[in-house]
Amino acid sequence: MKTISENRCYGGTQGVYSHASETCSCDMTFAVFLPEEAAFGPVPVLWFLSGLTCTHENAMTKAGAQAWAAEQGIAIIFPDTSPRGEDVADDEAYDLGKGAGFYIDATEEPWSKHYKMWSYIADELPALVGENFPLDMERQSICGHSMGGHGALTFAMALPGRFRSVSAFAPICNPLKSDWGRKQFTAYWGADESKWGPHDASVLMQGGGFDGPILIDTGTDDQFGDLLGTEALAQAMAAKRQEGTIRLQKGYDHSYFFISTFMEDHVNFHAEALYA
Amino acid sequence: MKTISENRCYGGTQGVYSHASETCSCDMTFAVFLPEEAAFGPVPVLWFLSGLTCTHENAMTKAGAQAWAAEQGIAIIFPDTSPRGEDVADDEAYDLGKGAGFYIDATEEPWSKHYKMWSYIADELPALVGENFPLDMERQSICGHSMGGHGALTFAMALPGRFRSVSAFAPICNPLKSDWGRKQFTAYWGADESKWGPHDASVLMQGGGFDGPILIDTGTDDQFGDLLGTEALAQAMAAKRQEGTIRLQKGYDHSYFFISTFMEDHVNFHAEALYA
Repeated sequence: MKTISENRCYGGTQGVYSHASETCSCDMTFAVFLPEEAAFGPVPVLWFLSGLTCTHENAMTKAGAQAWAAEQGIAIIFPDTSPRGEDVADDEAYDLGKGAGFYIDATEEPWSKHYKMWSYIADELPALVGENFPLDMERQSICGHSMGGHGALTFAMALPGRFRSVSAFAPICNPLKSDWGRKQFTAYWGADESKWGPHDASVLMQGGGFDGPILIDTGTDDQFGDLLGTEALAQAMAAKRQEGTIRLQKGYDHSYFFISTFMEDHVNFHAEALYA
Repeated sequence: MKTISENRCYGGTQGVYSHASETCSCDMTFAVFLPEEAAFGPVPVLWFLSGLTCTHENAMTKAGAQAWAAEQGIAIIFPDTSPRGEDVADDEAYDLGKGAGFYIDATEEPWSKHYKMWSYIADELPALVGENFPLDMERQSICGHSMGGHGALTFAMALPGRFRSVSAFAPICNPLKSDWGRKQFTAYWGADESKWGPHDASVLMQGGGFDGPILIDTGTDDQFGDLLGTEALAQAMAAKRQEGTIRLQKGYDHSYFFISTFMEDHVNFHAEALYA
């Protein structure tokens, strides 16, 4: 693991690191915020999964999450959203290839060699950060934005017992019914839908759901609202009697101005579960 | 005036606008955060002047200021740091030309046509925003970072009665004695130092000082510490018995991670003066 940068931030440290990822067969970069408390012992962990076109950097610099994580004594991990490097397959579209890993393991050429973001976030990166930072891996929660909200919800439901709480900003809730989902699944998994994984929050909700609280914020003026499928997840949560809150925030859009506005609520929501 | 974007943010609106600037003889872009209270009447104004290489955007997206301004019901104006456009003179160095207006009015070629950031921030932009937004221009304060801290301090002292409070993050305090100052003054004003303006916070402090409170935060690990001249301003403030606080923050550097850490303190400091 290589240190790219470390900056003092809210009494703790905002670091950026890279490592040779076996899972993705390329170098991967990620960011870790450690609160002051980490100097004295392991602290709880909040994962933040970013959306289309993002790297580890967007949320790290624009979401304002460190303010609240520092108050609560929680670390934040900001992973990248796809494999990177010159030999990694890409596409001209902003929503396929680099910056658009969709948190699944590709099986089709030319994607299958590097696009393994499910295994990377589920297995390799937790092992790496658990070994190298003072993190209490028994206390983890997960959050994400847009494509990363899809990731957060699907990791939370597909890995029972791993995360104590899950939240999302404007998550893609029903990718099986959206151009933000079908397009990428077709590319990464092939056209045969029977081979597609259950990586759809609304479908997973109809199954086991999540054993913990869920918080979702989506703006009423989200310019991508039709692609999110919020109604499918809302319906599924209500039908399931899933513990959770869905807030439709009047006038907000899909931007980091929306995310930063409600980040305090999300960090405090997770803190309650992490310290329960 | 043209609206570039408006995003709902902390119950208010984060907008970006452009206009044809007479002062700078080019189109200029700036950002305005309006808190929710602005819907009901004029609100106090905090100016945030950015540092070298920045535009209106850096502080708008990375400083986290809107959170605290929304809590206090204060608007924030984020101006650009220099004139812009293809026909505007520039230099290869990051600290001269575009992104490096230094908040002074150039008199020398090739800079004098466009580089009028003193008059732009002192006169043209206040008139424009005062006319177009619900701002209480009787209640203004000013803040800045690095070169923008130099700007904030010099505007505050050179325009008595305009600002109720002034604060700065890692300000350039003594440009007459620094390569962040002498280089730009020589270019913009010429080599004859007798024609240089009194645009040096430490010198202005030895004169009239500031009729209000000052707050300065500078990191002990600032990588540009030797260029800032903090010691000259500290000496001058103490000698003057100037109301103010200078905090040397252990372990912090020059980055936005440093700024965002202490932004709450700065906004609350200004709020106290603005609502006094």
